[in-house]
Amino acid sequence: MRTPHQESVLSRAARILEAFSQEEPALTVSEIARRTGLHVATASRLVGELVAHGFLGRDDDRRVRIGVRLWELAVRASPALSLRDTAMPFMEGVHDVVGHHVQLGVLDGDEVLFLERLSAPNSVINYTRIAGRLPLYASSSGLVLLAHGSADLKQRVLTGSFTACTPATPATPARLRVTLAEVRQQGYAYCPGYVHEEALGVAAAVRGANGRVVAALSVIVPNDPGAQAVVPVVRTAARGVSRALGAPTGKETAEV
Amino acid sequence: MRTPHQESVLSRAARILEAFSQEEPALTVSEIARRTGLHVATASRLVGELVAHGFLGRDDDRRVRIGVRLWELAVRASPALSLRDTAMPFMEGVHDVVGHHVQLGVLDGDEVLFLERLSAPNSVINYTRIAGRLPLYASSSGLVLLAHGSADLKQRVLTGSFTACTPATPATPARLRVTLAEVRQQGYAYCPGYVHEEALGVAAAVRGANGRVVAALSVIVPNDPGAQAVVPVVRTAARGVSRALGAPTGKETAEV
Repeated sequence: MRTPHQESVLSRAARILEAFSQEEPALTVSEIARRTGLHVATASRLVGELVAHGFLGRDDDRRVRIGVRLWELAVRASPALSLRDTAMPFMEGVHDVVGHHVQLGVLDGDEVLFLERLSAPNSVINYTRIAGRLPLYASSSGLVLLAHGSADLKQRVLTGSFTACTPATPATPARLRVTLAEVRQQGYAYCPGYVHEEALGVAAAVRGANGRVVAALSVIVPNDPGAQAVVPVVRTAARGVSRALGAPTGKETAEV
Repeated sequence: MRTPHQESVLSRAARILEAFSQEEPALTVSEIARRTGLHVATASRLVGELVAHGFLGRDDDRRVRIGVRLWELAVRASPALSLRDTAMPFMEGVHDVVGHHVQLGVLDGDEVLFLERLSAPNSVINYTRIAGRLPLYASSSGLVLLAHGSADLKQRVLTGSFTACTPATPATPARLRVTLAEVRQQGYAYCPGYVHEEALGVAAAVRGANGRVVAALSVIVPNDPGAQAVVPVVRTAARGVSRALGAPTGKETAEV
């Protein structure tokens, strides 16, 4: 990693944007400097420029937040938006019937990134949030994306490090291989207690116009045997989104 | 305005991000150079850096798109997200009953910026889209935000330029003053044919914990007298979101 002095302006700006999180959406300039390792004067100057472009906004109390303009630029022309827009009516249908959490995740790097989540009040516990991430091996969405991912991706994950969220998490290469084979064979992931003991995830693949898997549609429900009933609901919805995206017809589990 | 040579790196990067739109989500480097007025070499270098940070992504055909990482950074810690998350169940309820379009808009600059839109197939025509903008004086959401906006904002809009979308648009200072007084007195905006002759918008104010108006919740339905029936639905939903945000109780139209 380059030191701050050799770093480009864009790289430093990126580190400033990365300093914000859902837990800490508002920071002072000195907090930003501390978190990014930038000098206060440098942080202050860059924050000023980012504010001028609307990428950051300043509160009345001078704390700084992510700006609505950044959101607008990111969303306006984002490929994620059209996928999410296409999926929404299907997800709403599932949410009306199943309740709890319905979510849409995509592969980004070696993780699943959630583009959308619909939740009902008093739903079962769920660690997903919009723009949140989970490891591929732990979550039902991640397992679907990994099962249909490239050989390189599988290799990286299988030889990487694992953190078991619960005893049920397939957090060893051997268990993960078996789980991925099941997902590919069944056409969906069924994950009782993999992320949290009280929750169960069911995910199915969404395919784009070229037939490749572009997302996973999933529900999170209480971890009890009644959850089997949601499997056809999730598979049907994922298939519906795929059709709406122009995916070729044919076997759901067929590889491209 | 500074010439490209005097411009900061961040400013040039912002111009590159602004070159993308929903209509043209993928651009080549030479298209980006043309659109931004940057030299191809400069554009190429900056695009490379933006790609390295995930702010842009490259397609298989070397065209460039907005990157999913930019979306993630923008959404993860965005104040817009918590507002939108709070509003979603209320909006879904309205959408289940009314159909057509249900949307959530916030004031940004002198325009309304739409954070969310739920639409049904075969809905009435609607120019709104997520991360899209409309003038404050033309749209029901914009009129609500303007009616509760600062004196400075009203002054700027009333002395600015107007473009009538239809003959019904309140696109003169005199008509706009009357319309804003009605919105404040009624507690909602009722806009038959203001943006498009076949559509009618109804919007009500959403207030935050400090009692200030933070958003407008609106529906777009066909422009016929039956639309009056949606007024209490929209007002109730907007009030519900306000309550969920911790807004003080009291008269809906009360000013803070």
